[in-house]
Amino acid sequence: RVTMTNQSNRQMYYGKGDVFAYRTYLKPLKGVKVIPESEFSGRNNIVFGVNVKVAIGGSQFLSSFIEGDNSLVVATDSMKNFIQRHLGSYDGSTIEGFLKYVAEAFLDKYPQMETVQLTGDEVPFEATNGMVGNTLTESKLVYKRSRNEYAQAGIKIERTVQGQQITEQYSKLKDLQLIKVEGNSFVGFVRDEYTTLPEDSNRPLFVYLNIGWTYTQPEDAIGDAPLSYVAAEQVKDIACSVFNETETPSIQNLIYLIGIRVLERFPQLKDVTFESQNHTWDAVVEDIPNSDGKVYTEPKPPFGFQVFTVTQEDVKIAVTSALEESN
Amino acid sequence: RVTMTNQSNRQMYYGKGDVFAYRTYLKPLKGVKVIPESEFSGRNNIVFGVNVKVAIGGSQFLSSFIEGDNSLVVATDSMKNFIQRHLGSYDGSTIEGFLKYVAEAFLDKYPQMETVQLTGDEVPFEATNGMVGNTLTESKLVYKRSRNEYAQAGIKIERTVQGQQITEQYSKLKDLQLIKVEGNSFVGFVRDEYTTLPEDSNRPLFVYLNIGWTYTQPEDAIGDAPLSYVAAEQVKDIACSVFNETETPSIQNLIYLIGIRVLERFPQLKDVTFESQNHTWDAVVEDIPNSDGKVYTEPKPPFGFQVFTVTQEDVKIAVTSALEESN
Amino acid sequence: RVTMTNQSNRQMYYGKGDVFAYRTYLKPLKGVKVIPESEFSGRNNIVFGVNVKVAIGGSQFLSSFIEGDNSLVVATDSMKNFIQRHLGSYDGSTIEGFLKYVAEAFLDKYPQMETVQLTGDEVPFEATNGMVGNTLTESKLVYKRSRNEYAQAGIKIERTVQGQQITEQYSKLKDLQLIKVEGNSFVGFVRDEYTTLPEDSNRPLFVYLNIGWTYTQPEDAIGDAPLSYVAAEQVKDIACSVFNETETPSIQNLIYLIGIRVLERFPQLKDVTFESQNHTWDAVVEDIPNSDGKVYTEPKPPFGFQVFTVTQEDVKIAVTSALEESN
Amino acid sequence: RVTMTNQSNRQMYYGKGDVFAYRTYLKPLKGVKVIPESEFSGRNNIVFGVNVKVAIGGSQFLSSFIEGDNSLVVATDSMKNFIQRHLGSYDGSTIEGFLKYVAEAFLDKYPQMETVQLTGDEVPFEATNGMVGNTLTESKLVYKRSRNEYAQAGIKIERTVQGQQITEQYSKLKDLQLIKVEGNSFVGFVRDEYTTLPEDSNRPLFVYLNIGWTYTQPEDAIGDAPLSYVAAEQVKDIACSVFNETETPSIQNLIYLIGIRVLERFPQLKDVTFESQNHTWDAVVEDIPNSDGKVYTEPKPPFGFQVFTVTQEDVKIAVTSALEESN
Repeated sequence: RVTMTNQSNRQMYYGKGDVFAYRTYLKPLKGVKVIPESEFSGRNNIVFGVNVKVAIGGSQFLSSFIEGDNSLVVATDSMKNFIQRHLGSYDGSTIEGFLKYVAEAFLDKYPQMETVQLTGDEVPFEATNGMVGNTLTESKLVYKRSRNEYAQAGIKIERTVQGQQITEQYSKLKDLQLIKVEGNSFVGFVRDEYTTLPEDSNRPLFVYLNIGWTYTQPEDAIGDAPLSYVAAEQVKDIACSVFNETETPSIQNLIYLIGIRVLERFPQLKDVTFESQNHTWDAVVEDIPNSDGKVYTEPKPPFGFQVFTVTQEDVKIAVTSALEESN
Repeated sequence: RVTMTNQSNRQMYYGKGDVFAYRTYLKPLKGVKVIPESEFSGRNNIVFGVNVKVAIGGSQFLSSFIEGDNSLVVATDSMKNFIQRHLGSYDGSTIEGFLKYVAEAFLDKYPQMETVQLTGDEVPFEATNGMVGNTLTESKLVYKRSRNEYAQAGIKIERTVQGQQITEQYSKLKDLQLIKVEGNSFVGFVRDEYTTLPEDSNRPLFVYLNIGWTYTQPEDAIGDAPLSYVAAEQVKDIACSVFNETETPSIQNLIYLIGIRVLERFPQLKDVTFESQNHTWDAVVEDIPNSDGKVYTEPKPPFGFQVFTVTQEDVKIAVTSALEESN
Repeated sequence: RVTMTNQSNRQMYYGKGDVFAYRTYLKPLKGVKVIPESEFSGRNNIVFGVNVKVAIGGSQFLSSFIEGDNSLVVATDSMKNFIQRHLGSYDGSTIEGFLKYVAEAFLDKYPQMETVQLTGDEVPFEATNGMVGNTLTESKLVYKRSRNEYAQAGIKIERTVQGQQITEQYSKLKDLQLIKVEGNSFVGFVRDEYTTLPEDSNRPLFVYLNIGWTYTQPEDAIGDAPLSYVAAEQVKDIACSVFNETETPSIQNLIYLIGIRVLERFPQLKDVTFESQNHTWDAVVEDIPNSDGKVYTEPKPPFGFQVFTVTQEDVKIAVTSALEESN
Repeated sequence: RVTMTNQSNRQMYYGKGDVFAYRTYLKPLKGVKVIPESEFSGRNNIVFGVNVKVAIGGSQFLSSFIEGDNSLVVATDSMKNFIQRHLGSYDGSTIEGFLKYVAEAFLDKYPQMETVQLTGDEVPFEATNGMVGNTLTESKLVYKRSRNEYAQAGIKIERTVQGQQITEQYSKLKDLQLIKVEGNSFVGFVRDEYTTLPEDSNRPLFVYLNIGWTYTQPEDAIGDAPLSYVAAEQVKDIACSVFNETETPSIQNLIYLIGIRVLERFPQLKDVTFESQNHTWDAVVEDIPNSDGKVYTEPKPPFGFQVFTVTQEDVKIAVTSALEESN
């Protein structure tokens, strides 16, 4: 007979991954706050693609593991159906909103579920052009499937005595790859018997960036109040713009500056967290007659990385420091 | 003792793959012919990236295989150096031109080489924006590494008694992925005991496209005479535009129409060859109240494909047919 | 001026990934406990391959982010050198031991480092045979690089006032893929309006398994006392063996049973955690005349998964239950 | 109106890829010729997995491209059904035989098809052990999905006035990755201004191998006469064994020697063709006190490759040379 006593600290959940769902003619996202670094003003959502992962927890599932008793088990195949059909009835405009809608519906429907965790990876599509008469205009029919950077959202909702509560929520831009061809240095680091890397006062810095953000009020992430919503496209454009205007002494400092800018533009955010990688090329030909150009090549596999969170507290300190410096 | 007599019909070549070479400030490509379907007018080549594969043939290499005699063997590591350094001295603007330059240099340098075959895959970078004052303008420093469609070029040059001759040359656009959300049918195909696919008068057609083209005069591919050069970006835009304006009865017919348009825009081309794949989604929710939208999901792994060449002869026949129809 | 006050709860670390290191003639692993389910008795370590990731934390690194001050920054390129050279001086026999050796060396060498977290993925090699005279024997020279299941280990060591302390340690078998062709059912699960999956009393169950384990005494993981060491090869063999002998009602129950067996064989372990996936095929041809065979095909992308921890407490309960049942 | 005249030299075919088909309890392969380098004696075929690609040609398909006329088009979805169902009725034991069976069935069924080309990639499964009582024996239920080397076969059958004819047939072992830790040199190659690679008299040679073979009589490939059948497992074992016993001066020579051995063991073969790659590691630590070991790491991406065909004519010459040398 299974008792609940041996449950503490055990990981126990199950679910479904790679639940692809594509929706045509989802409600457009309009009315977001426009920022100087970005031309983004909304998404028409003619094609909306998302790859969902759901993980379900609940103490009553223990007997399914220990006794092979499936009587409370919602088949993961049914979870897939549940998610895909709810994309048909979802009347919002964002991945964040869709995940919240589905998570709440799971908890409403199945009392044995205690926690629902959902992740949604955007399947991005880009606009193309078509001719109307002799004029090239944006097509409302043909889209290009992109394999570049994409948005991700995550939510965890738990059933508590006070009802359903959002206990985790984040939004993220994933797999942005940016090269700045010059204006980057890396000098002054520790030199010892393990150091073979030369100092470099002007390298072509090639970074991979994941940028995640959380809201002070998780409800702002949903997008129903678009002025409070932060779009991944805007975060991407801020990253590009700050990179463009900064002489970087390191990736560490670059991501700090991007984070400060994101938090300045969007005070409704609580913090911004970076996962960056360094994939800077190796130089092959340094001097080309009559040219500023150089030839580089792919480095060996090892890559440097950084993980760093920037908070609104950092913004305040940065502002204070800037004021002090200017006095 | 190795003789040459047993050489016939044997495959024998060697070389180097994944030779990545990045060049900053290569000469810009300007002055291409502008076509209605595309806004493309050139490449600034501030970052030019290419992944080269080289394959070398020559009967004198036989002893390296049979006897392990390395005396005529150019190490593939040296080939890598050769390619990367030549990107430093290349003064043209295209992958096609670079490959020709390198291939000729190999044959000039090493008499034991009889054939040189080079393939170059573009490593594509996209423009980003940065702020100059309060104005958002295209950055000349920061580029986004794209993992979407890319250009490829191939060339084979052989040493003959008449000197070096180009015996193969092609250009190609690879891995373009396009979805058209409606306006596509697939009906009227063979129905028998193996048929389970229903007819569909309005499906969201999702295609992968590789589009290759050859020139009547291979020299036109090099790009030194830009008016004769066909850019992969233009071919991509034609594909998008034709897809946008066509009610497709099948992928077969779609690619035929794209091919005809490419050949009409660029009469210097000899033919266009397609490798297309069908990755159309499966429908999950067909009716959504108060919406034209539907929900779809990823199909099982099997994908349909087509390979088809369209020639200038086809253009002539199409024009004749159109004339006859209009009479 | 950077202060430490704004540090709380912030993620901040950096490091190097994909640090591949291959060592020939590492000290062999001998003297492990032999179990009935496995023929494994040791590793000759003629080729030892590991892909290491290192992540370094420490409050003094904050100024490198906020001020771009690199003076305390150990370049990640130097970390790579540090790891690879320490594989030369490591005189133990396991990935777990190597990671501990390197982590301690980092903390000894660099006072600004407060936490060192290392992950090591085995790069597995399999024995091949060669002829000695006319006899086929195991080669001591030629190994096959395997891309199948592999071992992983992780360790986190922190600098505390009491000195260095291991605060996390685990070992893991990753990416094992097993199919059992019959003797698996999945029935009795929840049926409602979202259920389209039929019950199946005899399906070919195809599972992916990651199996992790921790030791009550982390030092037992190092392998210097081989009788206390648990090899990934043994865990793999237990998984195969339990799967073979079990009529499975679900993956949930299968992994519970594997976990119980692992913990019974190795009482020095604290717990075993599973990440399982269901990739069971879809049936295509169910009846073949004069054959027990069927034809199946690859399913659509969505896959079910389970995450579950089995503890020594579960073993005690299982033993008690078995006793009660037999009375 | 479409005519056939503009067809010459055009590529035109279509088909289906990634048609996965798994069959349980296919007829076992027994009675193959046993060779000294290999313990292989057959396959029980309890799980038989194959990933099929089919490409169909025929001049009558032209109107489907040019006019969008689908009346002769066999949907690729139907081709998938055709292939999978024929795996149910196939009563042989090999991929080669299955492909021939399917190809002939396509031509028998659909008169508009003129050529059928099929490729089949083995989805390999390895045996595992289970306990029967206290004895560990090979399981007849649980198999491990392998992602290592696998067999491939290809066939092309054309409809001619004389009936169906096999115009291409090959078998292949793909993606074998072998490292020999010592006993490999690479010296005496061309040195010039592009050479930076040092000579190496004892490197750890890491090769990737694809090995293809064709039969003098294509029917011998089918496996119905097992004594004439060459199994991919045997070719793999020959490659390992020859590598083990050879001091290699280059990959070129290694693959020649493997080819000669394969052709000696299997005189029914016409030729053997290699696609090899060099992925040899870079040395990091060359001298380790009191050890023969070294530390290596992953090289940069560029890899050398060789393509070479060995024929029965080469065997004759080799035998003659050996005789002359011994005189």
